[in-house]
Parts: sequence; structure tokens; C-alpha cells
Amino acid sequence: MRSIMRVREVLETSLYADDLEAAERFYGGVLGLETIVRVPGRHVFFRCGARVFLVFNPERTLEGGMLPPHGARGPGHVAFAIPEAELDGWRAHLQGHGVEIETDFTWPDGGRSLYFRDPAGNSLELGTPAIWRIPEPDIFAPSTRSS
Amino acid sequence: MRSIMRVREVLETSLYADDLEAAERFYGGVLGLETIVRVPGRHVFFRCGARVFLVFNPERTLEGGMLPPHGARGPGHVAFAIPEAELDGWRAHLQGHGVEIETDFTWPDGGRSLYFRDPAGNSLELGTPAIWRIPEPDIFAPSTRSS
Repeated sequence: MRSIMRVREVLETSLYADDLEAAERFYGGVLGLETIVRVPGRHVFFRCGARVFLVFNPERTLEGGMLPPHGARGPGHVAFAIPEAELDGWRAHLQGHGVEIETDFTWPDGGRSLYFRDPAGNSLELGTPAIWRIPEPDIFAPSTRSS
Repeated sequence: MRSIMRVREVLETSLYADDLEAAERFYGGVLGLETIVRVPGRHVFFRCGARVFLVFNPERTLEGGMLPPHGARGPGHVAFAIPEAELDGWRAHLQGHGVEIETDFTWPDGGRSLYFRDPAGNSLELGTPAIWRIPEPDIFAPSTRSS
């Protein structure tokens, strides 16, 4: 007998952007993500903890090829987790980079989120895990990886 | 002196679907994700490990409101992580639910991915962490959560 099959973890989170150089400057230079793969004009990939964050040019990925086609238009949404203790620092950091805070939201049941846009207009959020009643040690668990 | 600010983890991964009931049947019934929030016609949210996976109806989220508007059209992409030992079981499981495997890809540098579609046409992937040279214990770390 086999137990019910469940996916347990996200491995890749994606957004789309026409200007990948602007995306890389923003995600690398402002959010501090490390680029791991870059195919000019098609995609730029970043490491984010023990997962990856992918930015694709939909013009190219809709063509398909070896892998199935995909590619969305219009503002998508991704939230990154930050420790509550860093939230005010992030607010200052974003503003210091000229990034407008669109909304600074304190959730009635706990947690707080900063909303802003990437250069492509995607809606980004820096949120504390308390939004989803996730204990911080669960999501910021020390990794065995050196990076 | 402060160290460079880096986002370290994804908290919310999103896709869009017009038919949220079909999405919930699929993500709950086939991928085994637990629904945590449902606002009929607007969104359905799932827990996925110590993170969340969100499906929005772009028609509604583009309206905005208390939170900034977002909403994309066309096939997005999300990959969920599965242990290598479960991959063949997942292949059979998906096929048993009538889900067509669009591509079964063995990566030249290690790892393997199954690609298929959700009912909205989004490109989903079940991938082994080896694709990104992530050790399985890093991503499938036992959680302190009971669920």
C-alpha cells in the first residue's frame, strides 16, 4: 500500500520580463540574489536558498523547443520571505535604491508585507513568514550548503 | 556596518487560472496540496512545505484594492521538487489521473523532470533537486511543523 502522493516543496518560482538585463540588475543589485545561469535574451536564473528563482523572456520561451513552451504577459506575483527583524531595514534599503514602496501592509492576523514592482512591473512582496503562520526557523533553517 | 542585504527564501509562488474550481481539484486531488484559503472566484491558496502556492483569477486580482493589482495571462511555469526515488511513481500517478506527460527530460548534468499542464494550461514540472545541484536533504529537510 502506498500513501497519498503529495508534492511537498516548490523548486522553481518564475516571473517574466522583456528586459532581462534590467531584471538582473534589479534582482542581483537590489534584492541580492546570485545569478546562476544567464542566456542573453532568453532567461536569467538566480539561486534563492535551496531553491531557484527564474526570470524568462516570454517572447522566447513561448517558442518552446526541447522543453515545453510557456510564457505569461502582465504583472505576476512573487513573495520573498524576510525575517521580521529585517523588515524596516529592507524598507530603507529599497527606498535607498529608488524603489517605491507601493503598499506597506500589516496583516490583521499577524505579519507584515512590503509591496513594490520589479522593472517589468511584476508585483513583488517581501513578507514575514508570520503571514502564513510559518515559524521563522522553518523557512530560514540553516542550510548545509556553504553559499 | 551592515552586510549586503539579500533575500534568502521564496515565500509565495503564484500561477493564474480562470477556473479556480478546476485548479483546486487538480492541485488538491492530483498533486496532493492542502487548501488553506479559498475565496470563490478570486483565489485558492495551498500550503506547500514551509511555503505557500497561490492560484489567482487574474480577472479579479487585476482590479487591485487593498493590495496592489497583479495578474498574468498565458502559461506560467512552476516546478515542484520531488525526491528522485519518487519520480517513476509520480509518472504513473499522473498518468493514472489522465494527466499527459508532455516531456520526460533527463538533464545532461544530472536530475530529471516531468513536464505536464494544469487545467489552465500552465506548464508544471516535477523535478529532482539534482537539476540545480541541490542536495535532497536541503530541500526536503524535516520540518518542525506537524502538518
